[in-house]
Amino acid sequence: MPTSIIISLDAMGGDAGPEMVVAGAALALERRPELHFVLFGDEARVAPLVAARPKLAAVSRVVHAEVVVRMDDKPSQALRAGRWKSSMWKAIDAVKTGEAAVCVSAGNTGALMAMAKFCLRTMAGIERPAIAAIWPTLTGEAIVLDVGATIGADAQQLVDFAVMGSAMARSVFGVDRPRVGLLNIGVEEVKGIEEVKMAGRLLRDADLQELEYVGYVEGDDIGRGIVDVVVTEGFAGNIALKTAEGTAKQMGQYLRAGISRTWLTRLGYLLAKSAFDRLKEKMDPRKVNGGVFLGLNGVVIKSHGGADAEGFASAIELARDMALNDLTARIVEGLAHYHRAGFATAASGEERGEL
Amino acid sequence: MPTSIIISLDAMGGDAGPEMVVAGAALALERRPELHFVLFGDEARVAPLVAARPKLAAVSRVVHAEVVVRMDDKPSQALRAGRWKSSMWKAIDAVKTGEAAVCVSAGNTGALMAMAKFCLRTMAGIERPAIAAIWPTLTGEAIVLDVGATIGADAQQLVDFAVMGSAMARSVFGVDRPRVGLLNIGVEEVKGIEEVKMAGRLLRDADLQELEYVGYVEGDDIGRGIVDVVVTEGFAGNIALKTAEGTAKQMGQYLRAGISRTWLTRLGYLLAKSAFDRLKEKMDPRKVNGGVFLGLNGVVIKSHGGADAEGFASAIELARDMALNDLTARIVEGLAHYHRAGFATAASGEERGEL
Repeated sequence: MPTSIIISLDAMGGDAGPEMVVAGAALALERRPELHFVLFGDEARVAPLVAARPKLAAVSRVVHAEVVVRMDDKPSQALRAGRWKSSMWKAIDAVKTGEAAVCVSAGNTGALMAMAKFCLRTMAGIERPAIAAIWPTLTGEAIVLDVGATIGADAQQLVDFAVMGSAMARSVFGVDRPRVGLLNIGVEEVKGIEEVKMAGRLLRDADLQELEYVGYVEGDDIGRGIVDVVVTEGFAGNIALKTAEGTAKQMGQYLRAGISRTWLTRLGYLLAKSAFDRLKEKMDPRKVNGGVFLGLNGVVIKSHGGADAEGFASAIELARDMALNDLTARIVEGLAHYHRAGFATAASGEERGEL
Repeated sequence: MPTSIIISLDAMGGDAGPEMVVAGAALALERRPELHFVLFGDEARVAPLVAARPKLAAVSRVVHAEVVVRMDDKPSQALRAGRWKSSMWKAIDAVKTGEAAVCVSAGNTGALMAMAKFCLRTMAGIERPAIAAIWPTLTGEAIVLDVGATIGADAQQLVDFAVMGSAMARSVFGVDRPRVGLLNIGVEEVKGIEEVKMAGRLLRDADLQELEYVGYVEGDDIGRGIVDVVVTEGFAGNIALKTAEGTAKQMGQYLRAGISRTWLTRLGYLLAKSAFDRLKEKMDPRKVNGGVFLGLNGVVIKSHGGADAEGFASAIELARDMALNDLTARIVEGLAHYHRAGFATAASGEERGEL
């Protein structure tokens, strides 16, 4: 059994509140007995929920936080009202102080990112953080980043995303040299966005030991699983992620409508149920719940706001994988290799030349 | 029966060549007897194929073209080698001369767009053409544009796309005042790309009679069918389209793998087959085959390069709908209303102010 891993939880985040968070922590603990928790939130609500689960209570500490960031607070509002004293802030700050290895919150994404940036700051050499999502593919899973932290990214930032995403792929998938693709469009007359082309040249020239750059990938390549890491800027990445989720839901709905039409189709469904369950499991957003904030001095994981206990437990288990493999150190290491290779400087020069 | 409609076909375009094109035309004719065709291509190959189908031969004319644009030709190569004399060019030119109402080609997208722009030119007041795709939704179909004609679009170009997409929705879906959404991302801290925000303000202020602007939509809203037209720039649009196609394929593959596992699941599949067929039909890319080039002085439809006769027939039927409703005239009309309202001028002023 690995040594204990401490995760800080924003007990008040998410649509379902502390009941869901505490139930999720209990579920994760059943599967990962090395976990310990610090839960931040309204003590009067959270403490009894934890106390009701003796096994969880034995490895948890509840810390009172008087302010709750609401799901519809604007990031600026949340920062004004919740800095230092909200459950969200305190959960992030526990990573900064070293009390916890990773923070998990199902709270509002904008507020969480604003607070994480403010509290943890970006890593040396990184201008902008990214949100990485885990994407189910035909061959397993891939990491896609950025899925919405920032709009637009220059070539250097895309390369940073490639290095950070690869560090995450090594942590989560255990591959030595993750295959990395740059998301682009293949329509012939459009040669691809300038930043993407330049990032491709930089990655090819750098020939990093941490990752294998395989070239451009298109939207339909993501699910094929031909790469471990898909790099893109946040606008296109967010749209790709949401579109895939929407398409999966849409197909599920067509299938359900088709099945419920006659007794024959309903019977067929019962017989073929294992096939449907397999599909459901593969596409279950709860299994791959958790957007990972990369590029900060500490890892914060955003669970879906609408997650149930099962989904939240997945996000906690993802946090555990990150902690176990010391993701932050791996990213620092990867960036150091890249910068030592001198390509970051070469890149800025090349960029200036192109302007 | 409507009066006859003449469609020009690039008989040499597509992976499968003239056999597929001629078979597709014959299929479309069975369903739409008002169709007439002019087929451009290698006469020695195309004429016998047409002659072998007496009904098709009765409404078709074959015109020899000595040059074939290859699927991997770069747009510049294609233009150099194929202007004036390729089957692709001649098919487009038939729209310019008025001989045909709409042109359909399964040839290479980049070359087709380059030739269409060169031959037909953009409409007055339109800077950039767009490619519009028809997207299956839970409530029917939606039009998404641009899916890859050009990368990036300023606010004015997005508004042009909205007007053109609405004209197409009126032609294809027969709705009076199509609902239009701007594709954006909903992550809170990112307020949305500047161009999208400004386009939203322009559309709201313009309050056009041709369309109902309903605000921002996200990637997962496209398939829900809450709008008739989804407007975005070409990079994000192409990625969304390809990602949706990829996800649909991926789900189909999971399902097939699940079904083939045991005799019980295979039996269940047979009983529930109508449900699967329904899903297959709904997501069949052949049913919605055809990227429509908008913003040129004439309509060109790009069929998938890998289309079979059924898919190519769909693209021809789409061309027929466009011709029947005089899409080009509707776009001109829509743009005229918009420009008369003076918003285009206001927009450029506002944009200058922001720079």
